[in-house]
Amino acid sequence: MTEAVTVLGLGPMGNALAAAFAKAGHPTTTWNRTATRPTPPGTTRAASVAAAVATAPLTVVCLLDYDAVRSVLAPAGDALSGRHLVNLTSGTPDAAREVAGWAADRGITYTDGAITTPTETIGTDAAMILHSGHPVALPALGGTQRYLGADPGRAAGYDVALLDLFWTSVAGVIHAFAMARAENIPATELASFAKDIAMLMPSVIDEHSARLDKGDHDGDYANITAVAAGMHHIIESAAARGIDASVMRAAHALAARAIEAGHGGDGVSRLTLELERASGS
Amino acid sequence: MTEAVTVLGLGPMGNALAAAFAKAGHPTTTWNRTATRPTPPGTTRAASVAAAVATAPLTVVCLLDYDAVRSVLAPAGDALSGRHLVNLTSGTPDAAREVAGWAADRGITYTDGAITTPTETIGTDAAMILHSGHPVALPALGGTQRYLGADPGRAAGYDVALLDLFWTSVAGVIHAFAMARAENIPATELASFAKDIAMLMPSVIDEHSARLDKGDHDGDYANITAVAAGMHHIIESAAARGIDASVMRAAHALAARAIEAGHGGDGVSRLTLELERASGS
Ligand SMILES: NC(=O)c1ccc[n+]([C@@H]2O[C@H](COP(=O)([O-])OP(=O)(O)OC[C@H]3O[C@@H](n4cnc5c(N)ncnc54)[C@H](OP(=O)(O)O)[C@@H]3O)[C@@H](O)[C@H]2O)c1
Ligand SMILES: NC(=O)c1ccc[n+]([C@@H]2O[C@H](COP(=O)([O-])OP(=O)(O)OC[C@H]3O[C@@H](n4cnc5c(N)ncnc54)[C@H](OP(=O)(O)O)[C@@H]3O)[C@@H](O)[C@H]2O)c1
Repeated sequence: MTEAVTVLGLGPMGNALAAAFAKAGHPTTTWNRTATRPTPPGTTRAASVAAAVATAPLTVVCLLDYDAVRSVLAPAGDALSGRHLVNLTSGTPDAAREVAGWAADRGITYTDGAITTPTETIGTDAAMILHSGHPVALPALGGTQRYLGADPGRAAGYDVALLDLFWTSVAGVIHAFAMARAENIPATELASFAKDIAMLMPSVIDEHSARLDKGDHDGDYANITAVAAGMHHIIESAAARGIDASVMRAAHALAARAIEAGHGGDGVSRLTLELERASGS
Repeated sequence: MTEAVTVLGLGPMGNALAAAFAKAGHPTTTWNRTATRPTPPGTTRAASVAAAVATAPLTVVCLLDYDAVRSVLAPAGDALSGRHLVNLTSGTPDAAREVAGWAADRGITYTDGAITTPTETIGTDAAMILHSGHPVALPALGGTQRYLGADPGRAAGYDVALLDLFWTSVAGVIHAFAMARAENIPATELASFAKDIAMLMPSVIDEHSARLDKGDHDGDYANITAVAAGMHHIIESAAARGIDASVMRAAHALAARAIEAGHGGDGVSRLTLELERASGS
């Protein structure tokens, strides 16, 4: 028999998780703060968190943020004692470690995870779930599930770094198309070239990461002085068209700071270290 | 017989261009402001720009910027008259159009191009050269050579948009690895996950561009309010670790401005239009 599962939270992601558990044959109980959110077909809604948790050895929680998690779990510490809690809410490593401590104090087995793919991937091969703390396998959710170690903050650490990369890259897409529009270049015409540029990033990532781990920042595909000049050229082109260039200005300021500190001849990977001297944070 | 070619500029890129022409059997003459830069094997160095230009029907110029191009070409207007000039220096669309006007006034056939790949790609399949103005084919340089139309500024317009995407994405790589380091996550361990994230960008680019050309910004893979919350989470995580988050702060400010303007429920593609209201430029 497939184990019973409880899902706390029926936002878009909680809904997808509960639906995937039910579809895979897990008797699934759900709870949501606001009663008007529908529970997916084949799942049973409980009247309280404690009642929901009592129906299953495993509870998955997926809410807006860790504040919501803390307030939802607070009255259910006793009910969760001796059971396994998997928190798939996105948050910071510190918040994950804090909830892990709360769980440990109550004899709750705790896994902290992060889902890095959208709701429609859940239950399919495209899902990606990182987790750390107590290892767990949730085949009903599908995809790639990577265990990153016993530190419960580890998955959140990966998640925030990856979200950072994703949203900064999206900021680049947002801006590149504004530059194209200013020259009356149709977005769909630029797109195929833009995709070629995006395909350069895996090799940039490989070189950047290898250099960081080796601590070797000289010579790179570009030195910081050349990068700063390139960025300055983009800022000027944007300004000439009345397009906001504040993201590139911030990137340029970082490069300028590294040059001022005497690192102009170093490779781009050096700029990761420069961020740690957070004068601009 | 393969046509003679002149190359003005022997920086890393000019050197690669001259070497590729010579290798393909073009009698190749070069010129460089500073005599100490070596000319590639099989090429002949000329003593002046006018003398260099006089040796061939086609001159390729590749210098630091358009100021350098203007000052190098100024004394050679007569020598270039009736010949074909291909300018592969990176610059703005306006600068390209200005040099095109100068060339037209002197009966010089003019092509303005942009090389979007590094020197080592020249002469190989990996080269990518965009050009506009007068169409040209330079098989000796290899790779993909795309003609973008008669407006001589068009190639520069594509180039600056693509460089913008590249350097903003690199800024994301730079920052993501700083976030990982703060959690003692080895860079090479994050790299495989980071490459998965990078591989999401082509589909983001397809959706973003299709929506822009249709003018349809509602519903997207994320709405602007959710994006702003995600960005805020990254900023807070960075700040907690003393890591500069100014690039993400600038991206967040753009999203916040869109929300303030009543577009919080719109998709991410709407932010490209928001950049045109350049209060932050
Ligand atoms: N959606 C995605 O594609 C996606 C992808 C990857 C990761 N994630 C992560 O998954 C988590 C959940 O996201 P989501 O998309 O389902 O929607 P969401 O809007 O982030 O969260 C909505 C859920 O949080 C609950 N909630 C919010 N504040 C609460 C509070 N103070 N007390 C109790 N419950 C509260 C909501 O309950 P009410 O119905 O009562 O408001 C609802 O169940 C987030 O951490 C998100 O980052 C989502
Ligand atoms: N390198 C790459 O991987 C790459 C990739 C794509 C595009 N590009 C573009 O190709 C162009 C050339 O780049 P590069 O890598 O060869 O090096 P660069 O440092 O951009 O340019 C060096 C060349 O410019 C000349 N120059 C600079 N200022 C001058 C002036 N005022 N008068 C006369 N000549 C001047 C230099 O002559 P001196 O020797 O006398 O200083 C040298 O020939 C740039 O627009 C660059 O953006 C380069």
